[in-house]
Amino acid sequence: MKINGVQYRSVQVDPDDNWTILIFDQTRLPFSLNVLRLTGCVQVAHAITSMQVRGAPLIGAVAAYGLALALRVDAGDDAMERDAATLAATRPTAINLRWAIDRMLAKLRPLKPEDRVAAAYAEAALICDEDVAQNEAIGRHGFSLIRDIAKTNDKNRRINILTHCNAGWIATVDWGTALAPIYMAHDAGYDVHVWVDETRPRNQGAALTAWELGSHGVPHTVITDNAGGHLMQHGMVDLVIVGTDRVAAQGDVANKIGTYLKALAAQDNKVPFWVALPSTTIDWTVMDGIREIPIEERAASEVTGVTGQTKDGRIETVRITPHDSAAANPAFDVTPARLVTGLITERGRCAASAAGLHSLFPERQSQ
Amino acid sequence: MKINGVQYRSVQVDPDDNWTILIFDQTRLPFSLNVLRLTGCVQVAHAITSMQVRGAPLIGAVAAYGLALALRVDAGDDAMERDAATLAATRPTAINLRWAIDRMLAKLRPLKPEDRVAAAYAEAALICDEDVAQNEAIGRHGFSLIRDIAKTNDKNRRINILTHCNAGWIATVDWGTALAPIYMAHDAGYDVHVWVDETRPRNQGAALTAWELGSHGVPHTVITDNAGGHLMQHGMVDLVIVGTDRVAAQGDVANKIGTYLKALAAQDNKVPFWVALPSTTIDWTVMDGIREIPIEERAASEVTGVTGQTKDGRIETVRITPHDSAAANPAFDVTPARLVTGLITERGRCAASAAGLHSLFPERQSQ
Repeated sequence: MKINGVQYRSVQVDPDDNWTILIFDQTRLPFSLNVLRLTGCVQVAHAITSMQVRGAPLIGAVAAYGLALALRVDAGDDAMERDAATLAATRPTAINLRWAIDRMLAKLRPLKPEDRVAAAYAEAALICDEDVAQNEAIGRHGFSLIRDIAKTNDKNRRINILTHCNAGWIATVDWGTALAPIYMAHDAGYDVHVWVDETRPRNQGAALTAWELGSHGVPHTVITDNAGGHLMQHGMVDLVIVGTDRVAAQGDVANKIGTYLKALAAQDNKVPFWVALPSTTIDWTVMDGIREIPIEERAASEVTGVTGQTKDGRIETVRITPHDSAAANPAFDVTPARLVTGLITERGRCAASAAGLHSLFPERQSQ
Repeated sequence: MKINGVQYRSVQVDPDDNWTILIFDQTRLPFSLNVLRLTGCVQVAHAITSMQVRGAPLIGAVAAYGLALALRVDAGDDAMERDAATLAATRPTAINLRWAIDRMLAKLRPLKPEDRVAAAYAEAALICDEDVAQNEAIGRHGFSLIRDIAKTNDKNRRINILTHCNAGWIATVDWGTALAPIYMAHDAGYDVHVWVDETRPRNQGAALTAWELGSHGVPHTVITDNAGGHLMQHGMVDLVIVGTDRVAAQGDVANKIGTYLKALAAQDNKVPFWVALPSTTIDWTVMDGIREIPIEERAASEVTGVTGQTKDGRIETVRITPHDSAAANPAFDVTPARLVTGLITERGRCAASAAGLHSLFPERQSQ
């Protein structure tokens, strides 16, 4: 997508030397756009651990390039296995990370060491291109939803879409998942406007979604997480699209905490509620999302403090609660399938149900 | 209620001189407990305008004392009417403020100037005592709800109550509305624990509710506004109690933005959702709350920035959104009566419906 008119991917090989990896430091967004030049495996591991890159698909792609960088130093079997393990351990819960490393090793192990560097760069590039193609397909299938709404809406009326957290291009290599349909509709000349939930406690909406929409020129308005229900009550939301971290085989959707509340409000006000995902996000081993998907409890400090920019430009964290008050921080919730209008995947749209998923993925045998 | 074991009201006459008015500076809470000594009408007006005192019942009581302070300087008719108008204009939308000033004037106008100061202090004290008595009655009627839950709960199991925003003792003269039943249950030895919604954008939950519960010794945990639905899904909330800014004659409830989302989650998980209010909050002229109650749109800066305390103790506001992103800030929402289990008033509990309200207030003729 674009930043002030220039096209970017969220991870790129430096065209000047064809080997350095370029990423945006997402811990500095939205306040400054710092491009980081990663030249070694340790730097890549640090970028993932410190959340300079985040978003499951992006982490996988950057880790793949991390292995390519490692092989430039030592492409022998022992070093490759050691560096792969280092990279895989940076965020142990991110499914795409381990998937990307395993894919790289499967490709590289049979090769002679002297052939591995080139093969690693090629495979990492393939992982990136496949991610982009998958998200582009999700975008097309979601865009047709927006087109249908535009047809039934009053002429010249803006299409208002609400999203929660960040499932945009900087969480992937390009396009994003939930935001891909919005970028396509905007680029095609549709008058789309996005209500951006700030998404406490880490404010990925206020910081990242608002930044990437603004950088690409998509009209948007940041709201508190509390406001969406009121907007839906008053006809100010035509469609909700969110991403997901894991979808159960019966269509329950785990996503950033607060998604469930928006799904309830959407149902109460007859607003369509769609979830965009690559099929790798479907967990075919889980049926009942509410009972079976474990919810990560993150640090209380994310709730008790808020990080932002002071008037004089410093990034500072301020405490918003009394010093002796406890805080709890469940990071995700599960929206039951009955509240989900449908799923948007790279293969098309389907109902959020075992039957719906089976229709798109007949080769998968759910439990 | 208590602060570290000492009993306070949120507005008091200084016992040392019997005329200075003492309040807590709520703009400094929860980080420092500053008692402000108000000795004149201008100081009182500033305290209300700058939100050093907030909460409709407390504002009314403090303004009443403001008029008493003004009369000490000049108790003549012209001065009294002028000072009353000044005080009434500090927060023009707060219903209790105008009500308190009108009540004071009705009492004072017939009196000779030399009798007005003593009468004003007496009437302001009466307003305070009536507020306390009303909230104490709300507390009793709500406490019996908590007792009922305790009976059906497993033995020794904590009773978890979720609240949104601040409807506690520092929003009133004492007890509060939504928190009054909780204080009574706690003081009676029940093991109550409160989930405190932080309540973006102004964080009255994280700052004020957490502070007052902690100061009185009530166990509590601050959560993001996003978390309540997840907690209810997992059986971690036994009861929701919130306050309200206006109740329609058919039982629709206007309250701080985000209340509606919690009511939806409560219904979806069969958690009782109660609203505590003094009967002065009922607007008998409004039937359909969603269509008829106007929702104040407050400054975008409340959404784009967050105020808190830095590590070195300064109060600072940090920006959390990109500089060129718009923000919207509807301050209240309306929860339809169908989602409200019932209302807790000073006269007892009733269904959130025209019939329910009529049963408690037969003398009122709704539209």
